[in-house]
Amino acid sequence: MAASTPPLKDELDIVIPTIRNLDFLEMWRTFFQPYHLIIVQDGDPARNIKVPDGFDYELFNRNDINKILGPKASCISFKDSACRCFGYMVSKKKYIFTIDDDCFVAKDPTGKDIDALRQHINNLLHPSTPYFFNTLYDPFSDGADFVRGYPFSLREGVPTAVSHGLWLNIPDYDAPTQLVKPRERNTRYVDAVMTIPKGILFPMCGMNLAFDRHLIGPAMYFGLMGDGQPIGRYDDMWAGWCVKVICDHLGLGIKTGLPYIWHSKASNPFVNLKKEYKGIFWQEEMIPFFQDAILPKECTTVQSCYKELAKQVKDKLGKIDPYFVKLGDAMVTWIDAWDELNPPAKAVTSK
Amino acid sequence: MAASTPPLKDELDIVIPTIRNLDFLEMWRTFFQPYHLIIVQDGDPARNIKVPDGFDYELFNRNDINKILGPKASCISFKDSACRCFGYMVSKKKYIFTIDDDCFVAKDPTGKDIDALRQHINNLLHPSTPYFFNTLYDPFSDGADFVRGYPFSLREGVPTAVSHGLWLNIPDYDAPTQLVKPRERNTRYVDAVMTIPKGILFPMCGMNLAFDRHLIGPAMYFGLMGDGQPIGRYDDMWAGWCVKVICDHLGLGIKTGLPYIWHSKASNPFVNLKKEYKGIFWQEEMIPFFQDAILPKECTTVQSCYKELAKQVKDKLGKIDPYFVKLGDAMVTWIDAWDELNPPAKAVTSK
Repeated sequence: MAASTPPLKDELDIVIPTIRNLDFLEMWRTFFQPYHLIIVQDGDPARNIKVPDGFDYELFNRNDINKILGPKASCISFKDSACRCFGYMVSKKKYIFTIDDDCFVAKDPTGKDIDALRQHINNLLHPSTPYFFNTLYDPFSDGADFVRGYPFSLREGVPTAVSHGLWLNIPDYDAPTQLVKPRERNTRYVDAVMTIPKGILFPMCGMNLAFDRHLIGPAMYFGLMGDGQPIGRYDDMWAGWCVKVICDHLGLGIKTGLPYIWHSKASNPFVNLKKEYKGIFWQEEMIPFFQDAILPKECTTVQSCYKELAKQVKDKLGKIDPYFVKLGDAMVTWIDAWDELNPPAKAVTSK
Repeated sequence: MAASTPPLKDELDIVIPTIRNLDFLEMWRTFFQPYHLIIVQDGDPARNIKVPDGFDYELFNRNDINKILGPKASCISFKDSACRCFGYMVSKKKYIFTIDDDCFVAKDPTGKDIDALRQHINNLLHPSTPYFFNTLYDPFSDGADFVRGYPFSLREGVPTAVSHGLWLNIPDYDAPTQLVKPRERNTRYVDAVMTIPKGILFPMCGMNLAFDRHLIGPAMYFGLMGDGQPIGRYDDMWAGWCVKVICDHLGLGIKTGLPYIWHSKASNPFVNLKKEYKGIFWQEEMIPFFQDAILPKECTTVQSCYKELAKQVKDKLGKIDPYFVKLGDAMVTWIDAWDELNPPAKAVTSK
């Protein structure tokens, strides 16, 4: 990958959910301008969102979503950044990078601007190693390899479906932690990428995230959050747990670590507590559910895995609250909408 | 922990296997001098090993091992650094730090000498989190915490039994990788400590390793290697796989990452290949064995877990080569010797 030509120019879309003018793009111009942006406008569709000159973009507001999906638009959240997953669905590219509009370019310890997108692509283009832990982290990084005792049969690795990036400055804390540690900032630059091992769940944050749509796209549903729903701020977590279970089942990998972005602004912990409140209790039951979830061998596509998971969500989590029955139905609607916009035949040939 | 007083002075022994004069201790003087050293002299017992002045140490050569263990000395390897585990057995302390005599003090990115021992102790004194992945690494590090989506019920963590440190300069590669990448050096300082998740094996290197003897000591057996045995360089790996299975069963944690030491000298890859040769094939069957190993609920002590594992080794790996039958027997001998030197009653009260 030559430094002057951005890689995968025609194979990657950048998805940005927003309710405001996208001034933050100025800072990303060098890195993002070569790519196509999919902007998912949340909230009042009458509001005019300004995008800095020179960017190639499409913007979808709620009216567009309703028009494109018809009754199936019910699966796309409103007044919550979960709406971003609509962008994954309308993209026609192989890769997606999604970023929040309060995330800026971070600097590495030498003071150099970090090209987050390039690192994500690097993560996605190299295999993952979910079956055995490598103590020198990503064996495919420059100057690293598998260490003594790493079985040779596992060194080929598996395709990487997701690259989860991190955040300097404001860490992604829940409301209780925000309330308890209002001044905590993340200043630790950890120079590592690693595979999340098989069978282990992780908290996937949607702030700085890239994935291979062809490998895992249909599972990247951010659920029902925000307007009219009993919770918020669990959109990316929900997607992450579903994605991890399905990646483990299908033999795909998820990496976390580099790249960092600079997260500029802590959200209001009181507002967050209101959104998270039920989730704090529910996650104690959701986690064991996902830890124990088993997908049958017959599920060999992301879609069939996801529909099976939706069924299990309704059966098992539905007992906690009727919300999960609604969510399970929305998961099925999401897959139907995905397949409508991404006809299966096409998906197969583009792999 | 005040910076001037080394922590746990009376609770930690440093175990060093060697065949030569211990000049390398000069570099560690500030950090090691307050502690008691247990030197396990390998090879010719007639050789006189010089230890720099001012260190408090005991030295055990092969004659001492034979005298102390009698016929049970057969479980302690000869002409292989696996002999170091004898030191774990004769120690009366709660914590062990073991280090190779070609490992020097590394520097952190600011150029400061790294007090490896202090970081190991810090790792051991804080809980591990093996059941769910925290994307900001060790939540007990300064300036870090559990991120959004980490279940609150899992934040208490579990006791940490092992702290596995890393190496700058010469990485711990196997012979094939050494042969293929003779010039590769590890220059990446990764500022992180993390828990190896439950159910996942890792390659435990004995070069820079600390552990809690009371929690996991009897499982830290480095096997039969070197003189008269068909393999070498799998001593620490073997211990690591056994330890991991038992920690997972007993609800104990293993951390890896910081601290770094400076590994000065690559061992000869041709000699290493000879030692590793059979292990390269065998590990392809050993890994699935350990991945699938299940310990019955009745095994509630490290000793009972280890004896059960020894039985499974003989039953299942014995089919590969008679060596594993011998190894299984040696595992039992090791536990018997351990209990003789560390009477169970004492072990319980000192917990």
